Amino acid sequence: MKIYGDIQSGNCYKIKLLAALLDLNHEWVDIDILNNETQSPGFLSKNPNGKIPLLELDDGRCLWESNAILNYLAQDSELLPADPFLEAKIQQWQFFEQYSHEPYIAVARFINKYLGMPEHRRNEFESKQEGGHKALKVMEQQLLKSPFLVGDQLTTADLSLFGYTHVAHEGGFDLSLYPGIQNWIEHIHALPGFVSMQADS
Amino acid sequence: MKIYGDIQSGNCYKIKLLAALLDLNHEWVDIDILNNETQSPGFLSKNPNGKIPLLELDDGRCLWESNAILNYLAQDSELLPADPFLEAKIQQWQFFEQYSHEPYIAVARFINKYLGMPEHRRNEFESKQEGGHKALKVMEQQLLKSPFLVGDQLTTADLSLFGYTHVAHEGGFDLSLYPGIQNWIEHIHALPGFVSMQADS
Ligand SMILES: N[C@@H](CCC(=O)N[C@@H](CS)C(=O)NCC(=O)O)C(=O)O
Ligand SMILES: N[C@@H](CCC(=O)N[C@@H](CS)C(=O)NCC(=O)O)C(=O)O
Repeated sequence: MKIYGDIQSGNCYKIKLLAALLDLNHEWVDIDILNNETQSPGFLSKNPNGKIPLLELDDGRCLWESNAILNYLAQDSELLPADPFLEAKIQQWQFFEQYSHEPYIAVARFINKYLGMPEHRRNEFESKQEGGHKALKVMEQQLLKSPFLVGDQLTTADLSLFGYTHVAHEGGFDLSLYPGIQNWIEHIHALPGFVSMQADS
Repeated sequence: MKIYGDIQSGNCYKIKLLAALLDLNHEWVDIDILNNETQSPGFLSKNPNGKIPLLELDDGRCLWESNAILNYLAQDSELLPADPFLEAKIQQWQFFEQYSHEPYIAVARFINKYLGMPEHRRNEFESKQEGGHKALKVMEQQLLKSPFLVGDQLTTADLSLFGYTHVAHEGGFDLSLYPGIQNWIEHIHALPGFVSMQADS
């Protein structure tokens, strides 16, 4: 299988991390979004929404959306418990990530780190802080109660949220306010097979 | 079980529609977001993210995020095929909904229909049009190829996207540009057990 992505993007890094933890055999295809490579006809025929990450199976079938890819690749592994309520809780955290977390934290990080905080986007950057902290507080509440987001066990929910949370400081979020999150980050860093966002593919 | 929601919200209506189609026994608890009822301590103890819809099981366990609730309630029904790739495709469309569709179409509808298009939010309303049409085009491409989003069969992916798509005109989106979407909407309207957004609970 092929995974199209950019490891500096939290949405793509999630998949890289899962593949490393589960030791999945795959080809990583680097895609440069700043160079519009997601908008080429070839790419759009695989993902009409024009975004990475994208999974292409050996038989040519394609799957997009980072969290759908994570759950698909984690099937039958310990990262995706088979209990229906736990599975639903994993999805709950993943939808939370896409709706209430990523649009604040990833966008603030993008403006600050990749665009170098241009003056005309400073207001937008500032407007992302409140929502980002709100999301971090919701996570913190859970992580003070349980070591992982869905109980005692690492699941794909943790990988989804780890993607942008562990680099939230690059979006201006001070993680020292959140000891539960900091412990959880350390815990994930220490996992056998862990690969960092800076790693070469 | 109890479902907390407001049927005029597409995110809540999705659950109402699923419950009607599957004839699920439930108590519907009306929540008024304009009156801040999602921010009360009692509500926040059930969903720390302070949003509806919210599912409360008879044993007190709670689940939030509309699409996670849909998939949980649809388990073992024909709305959620057991094939892992089809399940992943359903999730793909649901994450697309939360990330690339709802933030444009639902927000434009909210500004226009609920806030009555106040002058100070007109720019934001306008800024939602391009992204909304982009999402509708991605759906249209699929719905010209297959009757439902994931093949020949109605799934929870269709219910997720039906929520705000069928009222997209209330956000200023002209659906006559999308014949595939229009057919699909008619198809869903005609399902046995269909309940409309205007229905009383
Ligand atoms: N909801 C999507 C978001 C993916 C996304 O936003 N990808 C960005 C890179 S982080 C992208 O491809 N942007 C290029 C574009 O939108 O043209 C997911 O989770 O996979
Ligand atoms: N991603 C959430 C979105 C839910 C959502 O935005 N709910 C709105 C009503 S449509 C709400 O509760 N807003 C109140 C608030 O945010 O305080 C889902 O799909 O359930």
